[in-house]
Amino acid sequence: MNKMVAKLLDGKELSKEIRNKLKQRVTVLKEKGITPKLAVILVGEDEASKVYVHNKHRAAEKIGIETIDIKLAQDITEKELLLQVRKYNEDDSIHGILVQLPLPKQISEEKVTCAIAPEKDVDGFHPVNIGHLFMNNPHSLPCTPHGIMKFFEKYELPIAGKNVVIVGRSNIVGRPMAAMMLNNDATVTITHSKTKNLSEFTRQADILIAAVGHAAFIKKNDVKPGAVVIDVGMNRNDKGKLVGDVEQKGVSEVASYITPVPGGVGPMTIAMLMEQTVKFAERGVQIGNRKVSNG
Amino acid sequence: MNKMVAKLLDGKELSKEIRNKLKQRVTVLKEKGITPKLAVILVGEDEASKVYVHNKHRAAEKIGIETIDIKLAQDITEKELLLQVRKYNEDDSIHGILVQLPLPKQISEEKVTCAIAPEKDVDGFHPVNIGHLFMNNPHSLPCTPHGIMKFFEKYELPIAGKNVVIVGRSNIVGRPMAAMMLNNDATVTITHSKTKNLSEFTRQADILIAAVGHAAFIKKNDVKPGAVVIDVGMNRNDKGKLVGDVEQKGVSEVASYITPVPGGVGPMTIAMLMEQTVKFAERGVQIGNRKVSNG
Repeated sequence: MNKMVAKLLDGKELSKEIRNKLKQRVTVLKEKGITPKLAVILVGEDEASKVYVHNKHRAAEKIGIETIDIKLAQDITEKELLLQVRKYNEDDSIHGILVQLPLPKQISEEKVTCAIAPEKDVDGFHPVNIGHLFMNNPHSLPCTPHGIMKFFEKYELPIAGKNVVIVGRSNIVGRPMAAMMLNNDATVTITHSKTKNLSEFTRQADILIAAVGHAAFIKKNDVKPGAVVIDVGMNRNDKGKLVGDVEQKGVSEVASYITPVPGGVGPMTIAMLMEQTVKFAERGVQIGNRKVSNG
Repeated sequence: MNKMVAKLLDGKELSKEIRNKLKQRVTVLKEKGITPKLAVILVGEDEASKVYVHNKHRAAEKIGIETIDIKLAQDITEKELLLQVRKYNEDDSIHGILVQLPLPKQISEEKVTCAIAPEKDVDGFHPVNIGHLFMNNPHSLPCTPHGIMKFFEKYELPIAGKNVVIVGRSNIVGRPMAAMMLNNDATVTITHSKTKNLSEFTRQADILIAAVGHAAFIKKNDVKPGAVVIDVGMNRNDKGKLVGDVEQKGVSEVASYITPVPGGVGPMTIAMLMEQTVKFAERGVQIGNRKVSNG
């Protein structure tokens, strides 16, 4: 028996490495009198959102990023929320603005997303930032797919010319992921709930990215031997355990690399949010002998 | 011998049909005191650009769209061009603005594209419009892929669940085409110069879209029997004849539908430019019992 066992792409370790580097960049910024500052707006009492927002504050604090904690009532009007966003748009001491989604029904998420100044849009969800990304001229990148790209960098996994298959076409993962892979010269296929014979596509993938939101949706037989498998899922199974979109045990026997759940993609998302905030704070600042102008 | 012969997707006929409908919509607008108005900016003396711009003026005139013909010197500064664009942005009588590309070297095409007010961006090239398209909330659509979508509507060719393969990843055809097909529930693969074993992808396509810019690049063996083949190419072969990216004679023996070159995609592009201009002029106007608010 010679069972192949996939190497783990360790998001805990990699995100720690990234956060340590960010800490140093923040120190340099502070020496120049600049403290990176992130405004985090939470509307209402959604429990999951509260946890996410808490984790973002904590991650920021550890790196030295200052956060502003804005908690608004569930019944706030759209107009009031937009006024808040504009206030932080105009405040030069704020480098990043984040409005935690989902929002209550009376508020248009699209309007709020579009109201955030693109140069402070740390989530990379503003249409103009999505547009720049799809035109291969990225300014701000959605955090989850950006975090996934970091695995390929760190583990030196080639992308150019590879057959990348993405399962799921959401605006925050599937679509921007496709753009990033395409911008890195992969051949990219986007599959989704309307795809026929899904397995025929996934079985041809050199790089398979599952972002579908169904526990253990991708099975061993769906994966090409030697593929790199990225599991974006965060689902609770019937025993209440956190599981991914990939049946990890079986798929690990055929894949060459796999992101575990938990400890894979998850920790990378927040790390990328922090990196984007630091990048925005660095903009226009002289660091060493270079003036940083990246968006 | 039972050679299948692909049916032609007739762009000349379809674009005429669309232009006739637009003529009626313009008449309605004029009865309400509104004349759709398109500003066309041409910089320099590029011969191909002159022809394109001339054709756009002529098409507009036939439909009843008024055009403003702005011809600027080859050595104009970026600043001067941006001032012109802003002038038309602020002019409420202008519904659409188009800057013919390519631009001279001293001018950033990106800056100029971004300077056009998104609500007057008839080409659909502004990053915010590309972003809206990729987020499945289109406001203004790039004309060539939009024209291609019209064939599927007219000939009632299903898209949902089909395997669509696009050859070429330009910002004006390949990428927005991918978004439109994905938004219509196709499974979409984007291939390009770095794709390995291209033929393996194209041979699986139910719908194959060639936008690569090489004469007769796609051959009979690259096409699945019964596929719908869209030929976006406009190349001169060694005899000076206008030919597409698809080897039309051979591919016609296996495809179910094909766009000819000339007379396929080409005429649709200008028709879509006209439609976008009319749409923009209709915005906010009461037509029949509906108030038009489409972007």
